[in-house]
Amino acid sequence: MSRKVVNIISLFTFLITSVFFIGSSRPDEGMYPLSELGSINLREAGLKIDISEIYNPNGVSHVDALVRVGGCTGSFVSEEGLILTNHHCSFDYVRQASTVENNYLENGFLAKDKSAEIPAQGLTCLITTGYEDVSEKVLQFVEGKEGAERISAINKIRREIVDAYVKSGQDLSAEVAEMFIGKTYILFKYKEIKDVRLVYIPPRSIGEFGGETDNWVWPRHTGDFAFLRAYVAPDGSSKPYSTENVPFKPAKHIEVNPKGVKEGDFVFVLGYPGRTFRNRPAEYLRVEEDVRLPKLQFIFAKAIEELHKLSKQDPELSLAVASKIKMMANVEKNYRGKMLGMSRLSLVDKKRAEEKELQDFIDRNESLKSKYGNLISSVNAGYKTSLDEGAIPYAGLTLNRFSVSFQIIDLLAGYLQSRSQADDKRTRIYQDANIDDLLDEVESLFSSYFPDADAALFGVVAEATKKYPELQSSDILKKYGSVAKPYEQGVADYAEALQNSPVMTREGFFKFMKLSIEELKSANDPLVEMVMELNKYFDESSDRLRAADGKLNPLLADYVNVMMEFKAKSFIPDANSTIRLTYGYIQGYMPADATYYKPVTTLKGVIEKSFSSNKDFTIPAVLRELYAKRDFGAFKDEELDDVPVAILYNLDTTGGNSGSPVMDAFGRLIGLNFDRAFEATVNDYAWSQLYSRSIGVDIRYILWVTQKVGGADYILKELKVM
Amino acid sequence: MSRKVVNIISLFTFLITSVFFIGSSRPDEGMYPLSELGSINLREAGLKIDISEIYNPNGVSHVDALVRVGGCTGSFVSEEGLILTNHHCSFDYVRQASTVENNYLENGFLAKDKSAEIPAQGLTCLITTGYEDVSEKVLQFVEGKEGAERISAINKIRREIVDAYVKSGQDLSAEVAEMFIGKTYILFKYKEIKDVRLVYIPPRSIGEFGGETDNWVWPRHTGDFAFLRAYVAPDGSSKPYSTENVPFKPAKHIEVNPKGVKEGDFVFVLGYPGRTFRNRPAEYLRVEEDVRLPKLQFIFAKAIEELHKLSKQDPELSLAVASKIKMMANVEKNYRGKMLGMSRLSLVDKKRAEEKELQDFIDRNESLKSKYGNLISSVNAGYKTSLDEGAIPYAGLTLNRFSVSFQIIDLLAGYLQSRSQADDKRTRIYQDANIDDLLDEVESLFSSYFPDADAALFGVVAEATKKYPELQSSDILKKYGSVAKPYEQGVADYAEALQNSPVMTREGFFKFMKLSIEELKSANDPLVEMVMELNKYFDESSDRLRAADGKLNPLLADYVNVMMEFKAKSFIPDANSTIRLTYGYIQGYMPADATYYKPVTTLKGVIEKSFSSNKDFTIPAVLRELYAKRDFGAFKDEELDDVPVAILYNLDTTGGNSGSPVMDAFGRLIGLNFDRAFEATVNDYAWSQLYSRSIGVDIRYILWVTQKVGGADYILKELKVM
Repeated sequence: MSRKVVNIISLFTFLITSVFFIGSSRPDEGMYPLSELGSINLREAGLKIDISEIYNPNGVSHVDALVRVGGCTGSFVSEEGLILTNHHCSFDYVRQASTVENNYLENGFLAKDKSAEIPAQGLTCLITTGYEDVSEKVLQFVEGKEGAERISAINKIRREIVDAYVKSGQDLSAEVAEMFIGKTYILFKYKEIKDVRLVYIPPRSIGEFGGETDNWVWPRHTGDFAFLRAYVAPDGSSKPYSTENVPFKPAKHIEVNPKGVKEGDFVFVLGYPGRTFRNRPAEYLRVEEDVRLPKLQFIFAKAIEELHKLSKQDPELSLAVASKIKMMANVEKNYRGKMLGMSRLSLVDKKRAEEKELQDFIDRNESLKSKYGNLISSVNAGYKTSLDEGAIPYAGLTLNRFSVSFQIIDLLAGYLQSRSQADDKRTRIYQDANIDDLLDEVESLFSSYFPDADAALFGVVAEATKKYPELQSSDILKKYGSVAKPYEQGVADYAEALQNSPVMTREGFFKFMKLSIEELKSANDPLVEMVMELNKYFDESSDRLRAADGKLNPLLADYVNVMMEFKAKSFIPDANSTIRLTYGYIQGYMPADATYYKPVTTLKGVIEKSFSSNKDFTIPAVLRELYAKRDFGAFKDEELDDVPVAILYNLDTTGGNSGSPVMDAFGRLIGLNFDRAFEATVNDYAWSQLYSRSIGVDIRYILWVTQKVGGADYILKELKVM
Repeated sequence: MSRKVVNIISLFTFLITSVFFIGSSRPDEGMYPLSELGSINLREAGLKIDISEIYNPNGVSHVDALVRVGGCTGSFVSEEGLILTNHHCSFDYVRQASTVENNYLENGFLAKDKSAEIPAQGLTCLITTGYEDVSEKVLQFVEGKEGAERISAINKIRREIVDAYVKSGQDLSAEVAEMFIGKTYILFKYKEIKDVRLVYIPPRSIGEFGGETDNWVWPRHTGDFAFLRAYVAPDGSSKPYSTENVPFKPAKHIEVNPKGVKEGDFVFVLGYPGRTFRNRPAEYLRVEEDVRLPKLQFIFAKAIEELHKLSKQDPELSLAVASKIKMMANVEKNYRGKMLGMSRLSLVDKKRAEEKELQDFIDRNESLKSKYGNLISSVNAGYKTSLDEGAIPYAGLTLNRFSVSFQIIDLLAGYLQSRSQADDKRTRIYQDANIDDLLDEVESLFSSYFPDADAALFGVVAEATKKYPELQSSDILKKYGSVAKPYEQGVADYAEALQNSPVMTREGFFKFMKLSIEELKSANDPLVEMVMELNKYFDESSDRLRAADGKLNPLLADYVNVMMEFKAKSFIPDANSTIRLTYGYIQGYMPADATYYKPVTTLKGVIEKSFSSNKDFTIPAVLRELYAKRDFGAFKDEELDDVPVAILYNLDTTGGNSGSPVMDAFGRLIGLNFDRAFEATVNDYAWSQLYSRSIGVDIRYILWVTQKVGGADYILKELKVM
């Protein structure tokens, strides 16, 4: 959209990235990259197969069965390219394929045979084929560069390395991942598959059972799984959807163990965890705990409340804001969990104490002292200017992300500003050839525009600036969000401004599209003024952040280096969406005094929750009938006398691990990772044996639902479990 | 108040009686009356002392240490009349004694010595001294009487027996309790003590910690205890408060065991459980589950929501409705728990199946068949007319109980109607000698009158009649509560009617007091019309209920008799506020799939909850300091490495068991009963090993708080634990 789009998205991604996907850990923490697998004794921990069966750079291994599918993980489970991943990872594609007559999202979908499989439009799969350390190349290139210039140079060389690899062959994809900030860079090589199809999707009331209520919650009862299939051209090359395409024959697929596991059993997970912050300094964690998490949590909680109120009154608005509410609710609950975990574990205090010991260690050694004597204070100063109170315009960014009126004005202003640039210099959407896309975007924004929702959102942001004056990043926010003004008044004023704005109608928008940016400015619309002023502020913040990042980049490399020297051991790099292994055990935990959660839930629990009046717990009638008949088929756990539904384990996972195969000691698939327990959200900062627990669907529930609800015997046959 | 007061109170008491107090059971259920103690093998269950030490009609036993104190239970714990009971049982008396300068309720109270103890005005203690079966006398008296006449006759003979006993000596009190409806009547004999004083009351933030949020909840962390002391005249006779009085020397006091108990230990409780409904037929339970519980729960939930909204806007109103909200919230949560338990346990279905077997048993035997052949159908018909859909005016009764405007008009109409009666025939408050009390009542009502709260309450009742048309017991309710009218309109209309009413001001009230009932009626105030019409309807309902009760009375006696014959065993009578024993074990439970609650909570849990922003979890700073110093004194549990706070046990308790001593195998006090778990509210209909769990404060927390927070070493010395 606007020319700020990249900066803003990266800023906002920075704000909330790790929570839009779901996520992996093992005792003594660890999201081990492939390069580190040699350093851990998996056999001693419980693995019954050779480590080379999991990863073998010179042969076939489990890694060849793993796929990165959208922002999630999946795995091949048959020799005909059948993929098992989460229901929530396939959600958008199932919705796309649904119509009013054939609502696959609500009712589920089963292709009667391969020819009836529906393309998941836009979904691609990546298979990791290898990796290469390119740190030297990257660091050589950026040597001597500082600040924002250093960050730009790093990004440039990373892009060049990727481009060179991708051009070296067919169906290739790649990325250069930063493993340790300013220190280690790895080129990950992928094979890309472009034709993925829907095979079996359970009804939403199973795949999303528990909804927002149960999100980040254990005990859990969600059948969060979906079967997809990968297709390639008859010659084995990657082609977009075509009827000519044939099922992909993976070099390796993971065998399913229909007997599952039980409490205490060894398990491991392979996947693509998104982002963690374990190797960050204390000051970074403090800013998270004191600044970012509480402020965004406050804004989101209040926004959810107000949007819920409006939704009750207006069904059309309700539909339009549903996904906005869902996204905010997911983040809001995650942040509450993180704050609880950070305070319970006294994370910042512990990290400060560790840094104090590190400083003593540095001070005791003259050579270290001359090199790193001011390291910790420099790091602290770096974070102070880039991230602390008021440095990031959370309030304004929330508008940018969630206010449709903001986005409409932003699009218009961006378009008019782009007019003075050469066509090929403009942001893609403003190029002449893409005018239809721009018009589609305008239409899409206006059709999802509800002035009441936008006014409420503005009112909430104004409330936030009252509670946290440092959020008042722009004077224009003051105009409507004055401290003296009650919430209702702020909302009413903003609604009136929307009403009076000459650009907030389709006609007005198109009229101004024909004018110039100067004419837009001279319309004196306070909303336009606000959006443009905020955009300017975002640019400044973004520049400040980039400059600070450039400064911090070599400091953080030093921080990790000297910390490793101090602790006399090497660390695992933070998660960065590249392939990792985590292992541990099926294990319960104590979320609160006198309360113990067992690590396996059952179908009985699904039925019990379904008695609630909360519609998140509605189930298809067939589930109740099957339970009443105790028709558990081959998937009953004798000890539980029931079908196991979900499993809990002390592995180290995070967003991106969604859909990861959970495997037993023999490397057989026994579950599908899809979430973490509430207290385990703190996992992003520190793994904790007390609280780090991830959640998976039990393979027995997947198979039971597929057979008894879906009637898809052929899938069970393809999986060789019947 | 009005002449209907007795009927209405009894009606309403019938509706919600069992939940205003808190509640006792053991494996295989049982709130055993003293007469049944011989039939159970307590030694085998774990008791290490002789049963005669608990109850001995010819000597001194634990029963002599037990007191019925208000609607609660307490026990003597020292030879100087020190009583241990719940904080919530002493609440009203502590509030009475509090002033703005000396807010004992908020800050707690410790008498520095006996002379500083404060009288608990109006609080009396009853000590059970014996009992006598008077069934024959009662049943002889009512022989041949039917319907409402039978009920009146039963009540008359019960009163006569009590009066005769009370007159037979000094300081006596008594009641004739109906143990089995229409079948068994026992005269319970009490000694009454009229001077009770406050000794040590913890701060509200300990005694009420968790507030409404944790009510009916386990895991619990409430220090719900209070120390009181009983006084008598120097000659040992019972006198109201006087400085001449001396501490009462109980025949027996219960020794305190400062070491407490642990998971699995045998425990028992003596107390005065209020009311259970175990021996009622299936149809009674069905009406509870389908009619009474859901309708009142709906009304109360909505009323709480609306009153909360108003409270946020108006601090004065907030204060005025706080206890109303609290009372409704207590009942509402209790009912939700009951409905959950009834449906989880399929209680009605089970009871119906039992009755079907009973019917088969009756039908197989000619003599039984001729006597009881139609028994079950007659019982069902009896409940149908008295209790089913629409038979009890729940909506109107809610107004009668919670609407101040209703009560004001009711008082006025009652007063005017009483004018035509002879002074000695009038309800007490309308007698000439009590005019000051009447005026006080008028003043008290007007000072707690908030038109907005009353209008909201009416709106809620109107909403209830929309959802459940059978609640529309009076046409006048239709007037404001029309189905066509949205909630807001109903509220506005009622507020306007309050505004326009000629009687809803002090001046108007006093003006009408001087006029006649006819003049009040001809004022054509729709509110007066509504109150009078509803009152008429209450009378009719009350008469119908009384007639049906009269009919059901001998049928229910037959029901129990033939059920005992069928099951070839005798039952325990339902709780009826008379002394009972229940026993069992310290035991956790599973409230939901994969969730296990342990039976002991700790101080750590108090601290954890206190991090919440919910003000129900605010704690005094001293608690956090003591915990930080790990200053657990003599009260640390070595295994838990902490002070135990609350304990959970599978005993059979109900409202009235509040403050009951929980005793170990040696009859020593190790806790104080004060609540039940959420799922255990179903206990009133059926004891369940799965869900029936009662909650007590651990003696170690009582002693720790008394010493470390209260600084009351002298109490620990008096208890002989230091």
